[in-house]
Amino acid sequence: MGGVVSEDVLLARAYLSRVAEPSCIPVWDCVRRYGPVDAARMINQGRGADELLAATAARREHADPHADLDAAHRHGIRLVVPESDEWPHFAMAALERTGLARATRFSAGERIVAESGEPMPPLALWVKGVGQLACGGVRSVGIVGSRAATAYGEHVTADLGFGCASRDVTVVSGGAYGIDAAAHRSALAAGGQTVVVSAGGLDRPYPTGNAGLFTRAAETGLVISESPPGAAPQRHRFLTRNRLIAALSTGTVVVEAARRSGAANTAAHCVTLGRPVMAVPGPVTSPMSAGCHDLLRRERSPALLVTCVDDVLAVVGAMGDGITPDPPEPGGPSGTGGDRVRAELDGLDPVARRVFDGLPVRRPAGPDEIAQRCGVSPLEVIRSLPVLDLAGLLDASDAGYRIPSRLRSRREKV
Amino acid sequence: MGGVVSEDVLLARAYLSRVAEPSCIPVWDCVRRYGPVDAARMINQGRGADELLAATAARREHADPHADLDAAHRHGIRLVVPESDEWPHFAMAALERTGLARATRFSAGERIVAESGEPMPPLALWVKGVGQLACGGVRSVGIVGSRAATAYGEHVTADLGFGCASRDVTVVSGGAYGIDAAAHRSALAAGGQTVVVSAGGLDRPYPTGNAGLFTRAAETGLVISESPPGAAPQRHRFLTRNRLIAALSTGTVVVEAARRSGAANTAAHCVTLGRPVMAVPGPVTSPMSAGCHDLLRRERSPALLVTCVDDVLAVVGAMGDGITPDPPEPGGPSGTGGDRVRAELDGLDPVARRVFDGLPVRRPAGPDEIAQRCGVSPLEVIRSLPVLDLAGLLDASDAGYRIPSRLRSRREKV
Repeated sequence: MGGVVSEDVLLARAYLSRVAEPSCIPVWDCVRRYGPVDAARMINQGRGADELLAATAARREHADPHADLDAAHRHGIRLVVPESDEWPHFAMAALERTGLARATRFSAGERIVAESGEPMPPLALWVKGVGQLACGGVRSVGIVGSRAATAYGEHVTADLGFGCASRDVTVVSGGAYGIDAAAHRSALAAGGQTVVVSAGGLDRPYPTGNAGLFTRAAETGLVISESPPGAAPQRHRFLTRNRLIAALSTGTVVVEAARRSGAANTAAHCVTLGRPVMAVPGPVTSPMSAGCHDLLRRERSPALLVTCVDDVLAVVGAMGDGITPDPPEPGGPSGTGGDRVRAELDGLDPVARRVFDGLPVRRPAGPDEIAQRCGVSPLEVIRSLPVLDLAGLLDASDAGYRIPSRLRSRREKV
Repeated sequence: MGGVVSEDVLLARAYLSRVAEPSCIPVWDCVRRYGPVDAARMINQGRGADELLAATAARREHADPHADLDAAHRHGIRLVVPESDEWPHFAMAALERTGLARATRFSAGERIVAESGEPMPPLALWVKGVGQLACGGVRSVGIVGSRAATAYGEHVTADLGFGCASRDVTVVSGGAYGIDAAAHRSALAAGGQTVVVSAGGLDRPYPTGNAGLFTRAAETGLVISESPPGAAPQRHRFLTRNRLIAALSTGTVVVEAARRSGAANTAAHCVTLGRPVMAVPGPVTSPMSAGCHDLLRRERSPALLVTCVDDVLAVVGAMGDGITPDPPEPGGPSGTGGDRVRAELDGLDPVARRVFDGLPVRRPAGPDEIAQRCGVSPLEVIRSLPVLDLAGLLDASDAGYRIPSRLRSRREKV
């Protein structure tokens, strides 16, 4: 893998990133099958399945990747692609899994319902700043919440952002006013790293009032977007953007959120991706805490209640430690041989091994049930799930977690 | 049972209530074995085991039950005893169970550690007011919290107290400033019933600043105490008092509590007695909400998160409905015949029956696990546990719930 990315691949990915909206199943599936260069050529020439052509009809003849890369260059933006060493393989492993599951069902004839179901990986990322994108998902915390934050929410966010950044945990959030901005501002105040995940092109800071903040974020950390320069921050791009925050964070804290909110959407992505969700309680008299309380008491995958920096570090700090982000080979599926599985299990720490042993074979179970099955605390289970996920030793869905199908028959042997 | 209580029994219980501190194991055990009249005579004459005499040494020669009953009468206070129709058998069933377990271990030589372990039932209750004590525990809610409540805590308490009382749910609390007083005040404002559980004698309102509130509470509800007239509200009496709040409430809400607090102690009693504990979240910046957050996230028996009256009514409102408080026979243990068990099971509602079927035989399980075992929601499990407990179909401990030992061998048959 890696090293220098060929010009062909870079141009192809730039083109694909322009013609496809984020989380586009037919385009991702096409790239998976034929590689980015051939996929881009097919789309450009109007060849391929109806869904593929429909999804790319608006822009496939007019997209100009040379112009986009030039514009990016002028704004100090680079294009990072899965073929590059800078690609955050560790963070994207979970999205690769959900994307593959989704694409497989799509290939089998499933109708596409936009914005629902498992999220797809990005085709490429437009990036600005000096931070290390490859480390995404390791020792990082998503801090998300309402634009209409209260003084309480901003105060708590500042505490969490400053405290996490002071202890070398990267802060990840969107670029909105309110909780997002407070998170980045406090991380920068601590001299820490922050990652702004934008919904539109990086040459068009949105909201413009936060443009200065984005500039400062890029000076020590990163500002990233799935959309090429010039792309407007449309509503559906905010929703698909949220899956990147979830994926790039070891765990995500919802500080303040109304009952129906983007933060709840981010939390749902975390659950799908096997990432822990935390929520900060607040006054029951504040509608801005109602979404947090809902997350804390829902029956499936309730959020962990956190009240201070130490609570958050207990979830996101420890997990990155001791894990070498050894990226999986891009492109191909993982090996399925018994020896390989045994080697994977041998590489696990004892707790993760016990959690693996506690995974049910059939009916998916939540962290609490798995904790009971294997005698490990629910928090340790939650910490181990991403490790197992990354190792391909976990089948995660909305319904919970279980042994992946490839291992089900050999459960006794491994 | 019931009807008119004999003068002998009343005098004996008045005497016992004066010589024994609340939750006194040797005295309760002596009464259990010999009945109140003989127990009082033994103690008065200095006969009995060392622990019994040590526990009663301070007052057994000087106690004057005639004088205490006269003083009570002058203050409009009556003595309610387990032999009376007014005794809250439904509420006290759980305390009878824990008390019996404790006394049995005490008889077998276990050392007494004051204030720890299962709580004991009261020997008698001194009562003032027009409310129906016999209905204690049915459609009632404990609303407890810090004396040093914040404006937020008092506001939330007022909402909950008013809302519950307006819907015929009796409010139960201590008599302290802060949350306790706000709970009673709001229940009275709604024209509802409230039960003040005092730590000292009812002729000595404590704190005196709440004396007017207690008088108003007695006009529609009740003010009760385990201690006879003249008893000072000492610290240990507050702690033992808390078990009565737990027992007399269908479920208890902790509105605001510091990390170490009496409210946490009440919550612990609720868990021991199989009563649901609810907690109101608050600002993480407020030390007065820290105890609530601890209750919400503890691993064993976490509190239910409640944010409004409807949340509370969902827990305490429904449960009392449809249950006829059919008091168990006082004195003797329940029958253990198979026919009787079958009749008890037939009397259960379908949900409680399913919960019973989900109880483990050996290792005690928490509500979540029982819910998984029987396919009923955790909330429904929590609602059904007291019903099963009352019917003697439940073995509850700190470790969780299981089939009572008398039914273990016949699990298949019943």
